[in-house]
Amino acid sequence: MKSLSSLEQLAEALRRLPGVGPKSALRMTYHLLQHDREGAEQIGKAMLNALNMVHNCRSCNTFTENELCDTCVDVQRDVSMLCVVESPSDQLMIEQTMTFKGLYFVLMGRLSPLDGVGPQDIHLEKLIQRATDGVVKEVVLATNFNNEGEATAHYISETLKVRGLHVSRLARGVPVGGELEYVDPGTIARAMLDRRVT
Amino acid sequence: MKSLSSLEQLAEALRRLPGVGPKSALRMTYHLLQHDREGAEQIGKAMLNALNMVHNCRSCNTFTENELCDTCVDVQRDVSMLCVVESPSDQLMIEQTMTFKGLYFVLMGRLSPLDGVGPQDIHLEKLIQRATDGVVKEVVLATNFNNEGEATAHYISETLKVRGLHVSRLARGVPVGGELEYVDPGTIARAMLDRRVT
Repeated sequence: MKSLSSLEQLAEALRRLPGVGPKSALRMTYHLLQHDREGAEQIGKAMLNALNMVHNCRSCNTFTENELCDTCVDVQRDVSMLCVVESPSDQLMIEQTMTFKGLYFVLMGRLSPLDGVGPQDIHLEKLIQRATDGVVKEVVLATNFNNEGEATAHYISETLKVRGLHVSRLARGVPVGGELEYVDPGTIARAMLDRRVT
Repeated sequence: MKSLSSLEQLAEALRRLPGVGPKSALRMTYHLLQHDREGAEQIGKAMLNALNMVHNCRSCNTFTENELCDTCVDVQRDVSMLCVVESPSDQLMIEQTMTFKGLYFVLMGRLSPLDGVGPQDIHLEKLIQRATDGVVKEVVLATNFNNEGEATAHYISETLKVRGLHVSRLARGVPVGGELEYVDPGTIARAMLDRRVT
């Protein structure tokens, strides 16, 4: 087999992007080389630059260009609260609600035994060290409410509770604006079980 | 506004890929930086390398790393036939049918006035020079059979016919294996008008 051309190498490389298959990769390659060489240069340079600059925050594990991220160095934060999320996007969503003033720990994934993602891949040791620093009093689990997120929350909860930490989970229930007719039965069942005195 | 971080710059750059919006770009960025740094490096390097190496064939306008592409230097080809396609992928599809032994011209696009794509963007001058070299006898138009592809074929046809060239178009009709019940009426109408004596 003859060696791949530069064009084929690029199409092959683009397939490593999540959600991009062979046809999309080829389409992207043609588009960039023919119609957006400036964009291609921007992507290539930004990619190598980010690799060089970005790493994980020593404290919360999110992406940062410094040793500690902007949130972790913020002295206004309540250091006794630690919110565990799967990804930086999830952290951003919670920040936008302005309901949490503590610090975060970003797992950068979720437990998924079928995909070979175990406790070491979601930095559980780092989380345990972070949560048992003597300052953190409550850990709020904000992983997703799908199977893998729930399993991850359960696993972390068990791990931290035996170390004497107060562990909580975001409330489940009917979404704001939700009409019962259109909410799935599982959600309604959970809302019924978790009903609150008014 | 503070300057973008390396991570934000990468997400911004990835939005220049066709079909990638802000959410996908961010997801790709997180994935690469956390789970596939090797892939990120591969993409970055392949991108810059391809930009450096790949350009358009002097004769047929497709991508190549040499002055002329592999097809154009193939002495087995029938130089009197020229097939006009929109993209290298289309050329590859036709090559796989093994029904055409002539040479190609790749427009690298199609006429699309609404998107601001005019004759100069599909290298029409280069095509005219190529087709009127005195050797080419027939030009086969193999642009797509959608509105823009049809308009492009019509435009090129008019341009080349006045220069005394024999211009043809791929046949339209019912696809092989097609059942009339499931074929759209437009295709059946065209197949009826273009019916052939058996």
